[in-house]
Amino acid sequence: MPVPTIDRRALLGSASLALVGTGGAVAPAQAAPDAKAAPEPKAVPPEVTRILARYVVGARYADLPETVRHEGARTFLNWVGVAIGGSHHETLDVAVSALKPFSGPPQAGLFGRTERFDIMNAAFLNGVSSHIFDYDDTHLKTVIHPAGPVASAILAYAEMNPVSGADFLNALVLGVETECRIGNAVYPNHYDVGWHITGTAGVFGAAAATGKLMGLTEQQMVWALGLAASQPVGLRESFGSMNKSFNPGRAASNGLFAAILASKNYTSSDGMIEAKRGWANTIATKQDWREITEGLGTRYEAALNTYKPFACGIVMHPAIDAAVQLRGENHLTADAIERVDMKVHPLVLELTGKTAPRSGLEGKFSIYHAVAVALVEGAGGEKQFSDRAVADPVIAALRARVKPVVDPAIRPEQVEMTVILKDGRAFDRRIEHAIGSVERPMSDAALETKFRDLAEGILPEAQVRRVMDLCWRIGELPNAGDVARAGVQA
Amino acid sequence: MPVPTIDRRALLGSASLALVGTGGAVAPAQAAPDAKAAPEPKAVPPEVTRILARYVVGARYADLPETVRHEGARTFLNWVGVAIGGSHHETLDVAVSALKPFSGPPQAGLFGRTERFDIMNAAFLNGVSSHIFDYDDTHLKTVIHPAGPVASAILAYAEMNPVSGADFLNALVLGVETECRIGNAVYPNHYDVGWHITGTAGVFGAAAATGKLMGLTEQQMVWALGLAASQPVGLRESFGSMNKSFNPGRAASNGLFAAILASKNYTSSDGMIEAKRGWANTIATKQDWREITEGLGTRYEAALNTYKPFACGIVMHPAIDAAVQLRGENHLTADAIERVDMKVHPLVLELTGKTAPRSGLEGKFSIYHAVAVALVEGAGGEKQFSDRAVADPVIAALRARVKPVVDPAIRPEQVEMTVILKDGRAFDRRIEHAIGSVERPMSDAALETKFRDLAEGILPEAQVRRVMDLCWRIGELPNAGDVARAGVQA
Repeated sequence: MPVPTIDRRALLGSASLALVGTGGAVAPAQAAPDAKAAPEPKAVPPEVTRILARYVVGARYADLPETVRHEGARTFLNWVGVAIGGSHHETLDVAVSALKPFSGPPQAGLFGRTERFDIMNAAFLNGVSSHIFDYDDTHLKTVIHPAGPVASAILAYAEMNPVSGADFLNALVLGVETECRIGNAVYPNHYDVGWHITGTAGVFGAAAATGKLMGLTEQQMVWALGLAASQPVGLRESFGSMNKSFNPGRAASNGLFAAILASKNYTSSDGMIEAKRGWANTIATKQDWREITEGLGTRYEAALNTYKPFACGIVMHPAIDAAVQLRGENHLTADAIERVDMKVHPLVLELTGKTAPRSGLEGKFSIYHAVAVALVEGAGGEKQFSDRAVADPVIAALRARVKPVVDPAIRPEQVEMTVILKDGRAFDRRIEHAIGSVERPMSDAALETKFRDLAEGILPEAQVRRVMDLCWRIGELPNAGDVARAGVQA
Repeated sequence: MPVPTIDRRALLGSASLALVGTGGAVAPAQAAPDAKAAPEPKAVPPEVTRILARYVVGARYADLPETVRHEGARTFLNWVGVAIGGSHHETLDVAVSALKPFSGPPQAGLFGRTERFDIMNAAFLNGVSSHIFDYDDTHLKTVIHPAGPVASAILAYAEMNPVSGADFLNALVLGVETECRIGNAVYPNHYDVGWHITGTAGVFGAAAATGKLMGLTEQQMVWALGLAASQPVGLRESFGSMNKSFNPGRAASNGLFAAILASKNYTSSDGMIEAKRGWANTIATKQDWREITEGLGTRYEAALNTYKPFACGIVMHPAIDAAVQLRGENHLTADAIERVDMKVHPLVLELTGKTAPRSGLEGKFSIYHAVAVALVEGAGGEKQFSDRAVADPVIAALRARVKPVVDPAIRPEQVEMTVILKDGRAFDRRIEHAIGSVERPMSDAALETKFRDLAEGILPEAQVRRVMDLCWRIGELPNAGDVARAGVQA
């Protein structure tokens, strides 16, 4: 008997139509009887969830290209550095004290601290710590910060259940691959409307990577991805509050939670990514399934990861780069500057348009502050986004003379800046790709300098050197959990 | 200096336009310069999050009408019954064994079992247990199952931190009020596209109710709601798998997690419900703010809660009611029935269109099975949605003779059924409101019968009686946690 399924899309207005997107669960034969009322059904998507699960379950470290392994180690080292750096921020103090009474056995440590938690809370807390300064890694195609959700989950797991460094690095790459490919499939619409994509796509990465280390079967991996799909995290409205760093942390613990349940055969549906009322159709208006399923094992999103030389959102980096360059070349001082004209991409003002930030955290969302402090101090590190820097009267005064203008012809990685001095002189700089981009990557040495700056005052220098060495050699370590043990306070 | 904020809506296609919805964060003065390209900005919403937080923080038990208190007790008793009933299902066995190694101190018990967990895991597990049979309470305006997320969170909290029954019942009502009002604001679009609204709105209820018991300040409650907004749970694609009951459980633990962090001043943004890139605008295409802010303290959604006489989704209840009535009145047997014609609301086939269910769980999503088993066994309890009932050859054969047809003139609470016998006779029944609806509520006595059926074989009869008595007297108990302690296995 044919099932007289109705196509709900025919009952909805155009807005909901768009929201429903590809009618994954509705085979063409089951479309609404009134063909004129219903939109042309798009092609039925492939079994995206299963294809991805099969790939993750089968992928071997031996098959990873050397460039991908090295980028994985860079991703890991950068993440450990920012997690140590954030470890004594008020945000983490608050979270640690809130969660301590509920923690399970002391299974995993926190970078830069002495406390130990069960692995789900440890994953959350290290994930929060690594994003507090907004200084972590960025997959520029999606603005996902890939390491936070994935590395936080698998390192906690690895501390409790010994795994080789090769398996660990393989899982890290696969987790990053999973979240970035899923992010590619729905970006930009998904991000534009308000989701914090690091948390909504990141949860898949955490589930896939932990599931890989646990040795899930293909079916269990399908369920892990399904339970991950049920737990997206984060909205852009929270940017500028502690809630922003909450998101990668919670994505890590949610993904771990999903994999742990799936490992005992807690079931989900088989098509949670692609089904009509699955994740992608519910949470976004764009679904490009090929981004998830094509080139698995040959094209690596994980190789496109980038690292920030400046401790703030990536959209401000071209402007900071220009300001640092102009200051250094021309010995600029704040009192000599009449004003700073800039042409910027529209996202710059949308994301970082705060004219009068009141805290270091808010300073990360102020292009006015970022440019002013870079001109005054010649840098854009964590110290430049502190409460101290934001309250500095010289910097605050210069902020008001920073005049960004949106120019749709400017790409996100570009800026055009003119610093006009009171004596009438003017200095121009056009940035095509900011330092830290795929085109102008930070060197391994620059990553070490960043790491040392972040760890200063938290871990002794010799310990910092040891942790960095372990990170570079992650793929050869007999026990990946050693990195976690090496990175805590004595 | 005016902030040259751009209105991102002007850059997006019509689909995303609709998705963005009310431009909460954009004041009219900041709208796009090209007024023709941008849609007319809707009114700026009120401070929805703060208004709701202020209400929850200030509301007193003394101000609750007696009818609302009694409905709250009914909600609580029904929830305890279904949580006991689900406590030995495979779903819970799996979840308990998966989470045991990571649990914190034994702070709270699980209904019907012996294990103890930290309160976040206990909230999750009791929440899962209470939804396994799809037999819990329903707010019919939104199809939210209100008790799962809220009661699971606050009872776990109350077991660790003694609170009076009056405070507990007040928090329960406020939590239900919070989730149902937020659900009203975005229903039906939000549910239509694929979100499991019990988990996406329920997390607010859990956060608000626990925050109330913790004595959060208004600002902390704003943050708790913001962190809750960052953790929506559940997609409809997972219906029919263990992932469905996962959702209210995870909403409970997520809401508790949010309130615990907020209680230590972990911050969020102030307008996470109503802001342009906050929850409602990101997750739905409809935002009716008045549903959240109007009539607080005078109009109670919590008074509209209903309880299921049948152990399956509410959309099948009119048909089961009709089948049970026709069988009882006419002494029908399966072999005498030629076929069953029915006119049903479109949602019936959309949600419960499985023609050949393979398990008890899948049977809950098969109108064919539900009607067949109700005609054969005269009931629609948990036993009728077991693997045994689904595999029964007599019932399976009758399933194929159940012929539902969608009729848009039929409302969700209605059905028209005709049972045609092989001897040519036919019996009709039209249901206007199924038993268990607001119009034909289950009596207190019927709720007790349902509770006893669920607890049979799990807790001794005398213990069942004691737990039910505690539930009815919840508002007068010196210590609400006594209910949790009374409901575990010895």
